[in-house]
Amino acid sequence: MSKTEISTLGEFGLIKHLTQDIKPVQPSTQKAVGDDCAVMNFSGEGTKGRKDESSKTRVLMTTDMLLEGIHFNLEYVPLKYLGYKAAVVNFSDIYAMNGTPTQITVSLGISKRFSVEDIEMLYSGIRLACERYNVDIVGGDTCSSITGLTISITCLGVAAEEDIVYRNGAKLNDLICVTGNLGTAYMGLQLLEREKIVMENGRMANGDSAVQPTFEGREYLLERQLKPEARRDMIEALRKAGIKPTAMMDISDGLSSELMHICSQSGVGCCIYEDKLPIDYQAAALAEEMNLNIVTCALNGGEDYELLFTCSLDDYEKLIPIEDLYIIGHVTKQEYGCNLIGRNGEELALKAQGWNAFGN
Amino acid sequence: MSKTEISTLGEFGLIKHLTQDIKPVQPSTQKAVGDDCAVMNFSGEGTKGRKDESSKTRVLMTTDMLLEGIHFNLEYVPLKYLGYKAAVVNFSDIYAMNGTPTQITVSLGISKRFSVEDIEMLYSGIRLACERYNVDIVGGDTCSSITGLTISITCLGVAAEEDIVYRNGAKLNDLICVTGNLGTAYMGLQLLEREKIVMENGRMANGDSAVQPTFEGREYLLERQLKPEARRDMIEALRKAGIKPTAMMDISDGLSSELMHICSQSGVGCCIYEDKLPIDYQAAALAEEMNLNIVTCALNGGEDYELLFTCSLDDYEKLIPIEDLYIIGHVTKQEYGCNLIGRNGEELALKAQGWNAFGN
Repeated sequence: MSKTEISTLGEFGLIKHLTQDIKPVQPSTQKAVGDDCAVMNFSGEGTKGRKDESSKTRVLMTTDMLLEGIHFNLEYVPLKYLGYKAAVVNFSDIYAMNGTPTQITVSLGISKRFSVEDIEMLYSGIRLACERYNVDIVGGDTCSSITGLTISITCLGVAAEEDIVYRNGAKLNDLICVTGNLGTAYMGLQLLEREKIVMENGRMANGDSAVQPTFEGREYLLERQLKPEARRDMIEALRKAGIKPTAMMDISDGLSSELMHICSQSGVGCCIYEDKLPIDYQAAALAEEMNLNIVTCALNGGEDYELLFTCSLDDYEKLIPIEDLYIIGHVTKQEYGCNLIGRNGEELALKAQGWNAFGN
Repeated sequence: MSKTEISTLGEFGLIKHLTQDIKPVQPSTQKAVGDDCAVMNFSGEGTKGRKDESSKTRVLMTTDMLLEGIHFNLEYVPLKYLGYKAAVVNFSDIYAMNGTPTQITVSLGISKRFSVEDIEMLYSGIRLACERYNVDIVGGDTCSSITGLTISITCLGVAAEEDIVYRNGAKLNDLICVTGNLGTAYMGLQLLEREKIVMENGRMANGDSAVQPTFEGREYLLERQLKPEARRDMIEALRKAGIKPTAMMDISDGLSSELMHICSQSGVGCCIYEDKLPIDYQAAALAEEMNLNIVTCALNGGEDYELLFTCSLDDYEKLIPIEDLYIIGHVTKQEYGCNLIGRNGEELALKAQGWNAFGN
């Protein structure tokens, strides 16, 4: 049998390849693979087939796996932060459907180098995230692993049928908006990687561990990388303002990649403006220092967990008063493609460089 | 900080330690950690807080993580079978609550030694199980791993409120029943391990791979280990007979361990009879050959995925006609403890030796 390397397909290609011809058979499955969450309608299930049409509650489901050495490096990620982040990234997916996270299950694979106290620290971070976001830990699985730490969290959430926002609803001339700032978590990671090397070299040179990393004035970058928050506040602000996005997802793999998902699923194109991209000044300063292009980082750096959404032009007036929200462009016809307008007016096609889980 | 080895607590001890003081805050959480599944009541959630009291549908959730080198050995487990089993063990947990599995998410961590074709094989097994049990694959996560294969599946199911069977409902004088036979999957594993060694030695001696394992007449043992089924048929038979168990769980860690869970959660004791334990003749013959005590294997061998349940004495007449179902004892007062009556009338206290995920 021929052997095809997985890197030739990449993560999204592999998932598409494995799942593209799956046809749901359960009447409760409303949306399967292909969005931030699956959507189920359980109303009336189990009561002799009679659907209760008056119930509009839908159940959302998302899952995220974190593997040591791939998604995190325990040389610079404290276990409590790791637990917090592992939970929050799931909540982010539920908010990205305009839902509310409600329950998680936590599965852990643990190698012998971890102690009970280590796992307590990890779990304390998961529990802290759950407390802050009002989510219950309802189950899980715990087992030993040969190497390293594996964390797999699945999250349930709820939303009223009419509130759910999918990726495929963007319409011509809609506004494209993002929350917070972009590329900051990526710059936080660069900083951690750099200081790790500095520390290692320092230790080797001095033969002791006196060399300490210098993070002064850069704390925000670290926080964005190590302890991201899900934008519940923004979902609430939009609801309060009476805005329902037409399409939405969270930015975990980078703006370009996510925007192209929304465009391809909605059958539209887009135009975004370089000078509208929200960029944090600490991130910009570090990028300068490290000879990185901050716009590239903003477009392709992963793990910001901000929200990307489109909404009707009619909502423009309602959008303006919302803080920490930025209009970065608009939806075009599909033929136009997905483009970035540079500061000098030049047009660049977006590429889904993103965060490739198979590192090719 | 002091370091406590995880093996001092064991899997159940660790889970208990981490989760014992968790208090659910979501009104939809009906049962959290501590049973085969969590139970949620989403009726009316998301519709402005008004509960729809007429809906009795409950959502069940369970999760299972399988790690290479711990739960499976790809030297003798074909990837398609592994996928099938990874899905079925989750369905088994849903049936053990007297529910119906409906959706799963599949997360995979995949190292570079696996090809696209390998993952297609794995996935084809998962899909086959889903087709047979009418379950939809609704999402997941796929990423690279440094070493080996990680499979984490979370399953949702449904049940009407009044049908759900928990672990804590066993009552004094209830009958204790099991389905199928016990220790067979364990003997299948012993056989695979033995033939693997024979093959390796044969190869070394002959310098070629001419030595083939001999499984003739033992196919059933292999099937029980490699391709277990969830007892949907038994759940249907019980329903048809009008029997609702008072307590139930599936046997994944061995009869003794599971029975002690039911007894401790129900506040009762139990008495089971050695000569009532259902044992397959192939399993018994192999145990004899390998100098293993088949009763010990039946009590403590894991992965049978049969059902263990208690039900009222009043259901005795209804139980008798059901094939492949065995009454092995009865529920006693808690003070009596959990005991096995041997063939010669001797009384032995059961021990939860079971399948310890931390191998201590």
